[in-house]
Amino acid sequence: MGEMVDGNDTRTIAILGATGSIGDSTADIVLANRDRFHVTTLVGHSNVDKLAARAKALRAERAVVADERHHQKLKDLLAGTGIDVAAGRRAVIASAAEAADLVVCAMVGSPGIEPAMAAIEAGNTVALANKEALVCAGPVMMKLAAQKGVRILPLDSEHNALFQVFEDTNRSHIEAITVTASGGPFRTWDAERIRSATLSDALNHPNWTMGQKVTIDSATLANKGLEVIEAHHLFAMSPDAIKVVVHPQSIVHGMVHYADGSVLAQLGMPDMRTPIAAALAWPNRYQAPQVERLDLATLSTLSFERPDLERFPMLGLAFDAMREGAAAPALFNAANEAAVTAFVEGKCAFSDIATIVAMTMDQALAASTSRPFASLEDVLSADQNGQRLANAIVDDQLHGVGAPS
Amino acid sequence: MGEMVDGNDTRTIAILGATGSIGDSTADIVLANRDRFHVTTLVGHSNVDKLAARAKALRAERAVVADERHHQKLKDLLAGTGIDVAAGRRAVIASAAEAADLVVCAMVGSPGIEPAMAAIEAGNTVALANKEALVCAGPVMMKLAAQKGVRILPLDSEHNALFQVFEDTNRSHIEAITVTASGGPFRTWDAERIRSATLSDALNHPNWTMGQKVTIDSATLANKGLEVIEAHHLFAMSPDAIKVVVHPQSIVHGMVHYADGSVLAQLGMPDMRTPIAAALAWPNRYQAPQVERLDLATLSTLSFERPDLERFPMLGLAFDAMREGAAAPALFNAANEAAVTAFVEGKCAFSDIATIVAMTMDQALAASTSRPFASLEDVLSADQNGQRLANAIVDDQLHGVGAPS
Repeated sequence: MGEMVDGNDTRTIAILGATGSIGDSTADIVLANRDRFHVTTLVGHSNVDKLAARAKALRAERAVVADERHHQKLKDLLAGTGIDVAAGRRAVIASAAEAADLVVCAMVGSPGIEPAMAAIEAGNTVALANKEALVCAGPVMMKLAAQKGVRILPLDSEHNALFQVFEDTNRSHIEAITVTASGGPFRTWDAERIRSATLSDALNHPNWTMGQKVTIDSATLANKGLEVIEAHHLFAMSPDAIKVVVHPQSIVHGMVHYADGSVLAQLGMPDMRTPIAAALAWPNRYQAPQVERLDLATLSTLSFERPDLERFPMLGLAFDAMREGAAAPALFNAANEAAVTAFVEGKCAFSDIATIVAMTMDQALAASTSRPFASLEDVLSADQNGQRLANAIVDDQLHGVGAPS
Repeated sequence: MGEMVDGNDTRTIAILGATGSIGDSTADIVLANRDRFHVTTLVGHSNVDKLAARAKALRAERAVVADERHHQKLKDLLAGTGIDVAAGRRAVIASAAEAADLVVCAMVGSPGIEPAMAAIEAGNTVALANKEALVCAGPVMMKLAAQKGVRILPLDSEHNALFQVFEDTNRSHIEAITVTASGGPFRTWDAERIRSATLSDALNHPNWTMGQKVTIDSATLANKGLEVIEAHHLFAMSPDAIKVVVHPQSIVHGMVHYADGSVLAQLGMPDMRTPIAAALAWPNRYQAPQVERLDLATLSTLSFERPDLERFPMLGLAFDAMREGAAAPALFNAANEAAVTAFVEGKCAFSDIATIVAMTMDQALAASTSRPFASLEDVLSADQNGQRLANAIVDDQLHGVGAPS
């Protein structure tokens, strides 16, 4: 990192996943703190119109599109701007590895794991929004980060909240951490009604506007399960010291419980620009003028309840995967991806998502012969194995276990 | 301070106000972290039985009773223990000035100001529970602390909460601080009912067990007003950046609002041992095993509302005094002390407390010829002036303005 003590540093920043919703919020923060950032590279998946416009707006040095088929169009869009253009998977990974004060890793899904590892390998501080990286490759990634002396700054609202109030020097006096959950759109639904929830029901999230996959994961609480596994790796907390509390207003994002009875929390309106600004500025603070300010007297009530693992079995399955360790979280994640795709495609009922994941994990762990789990290859292999098993369950076995008739 | 980096330091500590309720909680924390403390001096007001017992329990080097009439009895009680004994005002001040890693200043009322100043003058870190010190002598005390490089660690639950989440290095990005208020026993009472509240009504605090004066101050919200003035000095926040929110459950104790939309808060069950442990350990953490742990799912609801300055005029008067500055806060505090005494003695109605304070401040500030306010003498003179004026109002003028008929 550059000079951080006086708060007047300028940071070089690369943004991987620059055209997604985290990319949008990151751009807002960069623009609101224009003199604090020099943008090196923006990486987008395939939306080259947005990528080109953003590269110009953020005065990036380079724009990279992951899908090579859009290379020529990106060149055309940026012709004459002086902004370099590249395309393809290798260019994406090279962008992550290029020296920068901060690499925002916000690519979606397992393709985001390798670039995040490349950034860490290169010694770059990583601002991480890609869930799969820590869920699937947590032990591998945290080990590499420790070796390289790289700090991983979480962008997720819950982990960023924990990060803000987690006193690293007092970790021996931290008794627990709490991740809050909105409870999703089915929080108040009974089991019968949840069983037959439609896609449009599942996409109706009460507080956050997010992508389709993560919105469905919020409805099953799989998302909270993935976050618990992330927190386990990020903060080196044991499974029993990680709590989930349902908090429908999504105002308290995370809490750290200390041995003196103090519970430190980060609160704020549900707006991703806040955790992004906090991560990008750390250990300083930047402005996020676009974010509505919290006014508890206007909100009036914050409520809290225990999660119901009967109605939301995915949360319990995630805890099981975390306790199992090794490949289990990667299997959980891969099976969930496949199951959510099946649900979106109308191939299974909402409640089958958990059934598919449970069956996948049972089958994979029964077949396991304690294979090593120490490299990125092991992670990707577990991911593929989970996807394959889950897809086979969807295609072959599901109709015996409760698919829609 | 001693060695603090490894968290294995032992701190020398003097406790002024060792027999009061803060003294009780401090003793609990010392005993729960026995190897972290070496107790030099315990100072008590007059309860020598308790003082002697506590000196033995905490293995103090010395016990000092402020009221000299109890000197001989204290000597008798501690004969043969090897614990030194002293008495009187000068011995109290000498105890504060004696070199220690930490001086807990928890004496009640304006007599606590001078010892706190003596501790700072001597370069001792001060853990401050005495409200009057900062309310009345805020500018004088903070200036001396800055000169001596002394840190003042707040023990009050609200200020300690703010202290835990106030990022000093990011103060230019702090937009506001919020002090929470339980709202006291009359939160839901209408103005008419408050007017005729009895002493026993006022002493019925919903959440905290405290002394009589502070409990009545909680009922009028004067206590919150005093805390706002303390926060103004302690955190160098402008009056407009200090918010009060009524929070009946007393779980969220204080909040700091940052420019990125983050609001950091300290929560906990209402138990003074938590802020005391946090202050005594700072920047480490100690155990407070006696404190019930916070469980938000069991509590279920936290509620927040704006304070009503119509029904609770003392809070508005405190903001006025803070904005006026100089002697005004000392006058506010002194007039309130006199008025509360009058209420306890049955000389005035509950609602007269605010009337007496408002009249005292009007008279004192009208008579003021912009006298200097820069020394401890100026503070004590304002205190005496406020008491004198308020007592005169109680005795001579009150019956025209709403005393009980």
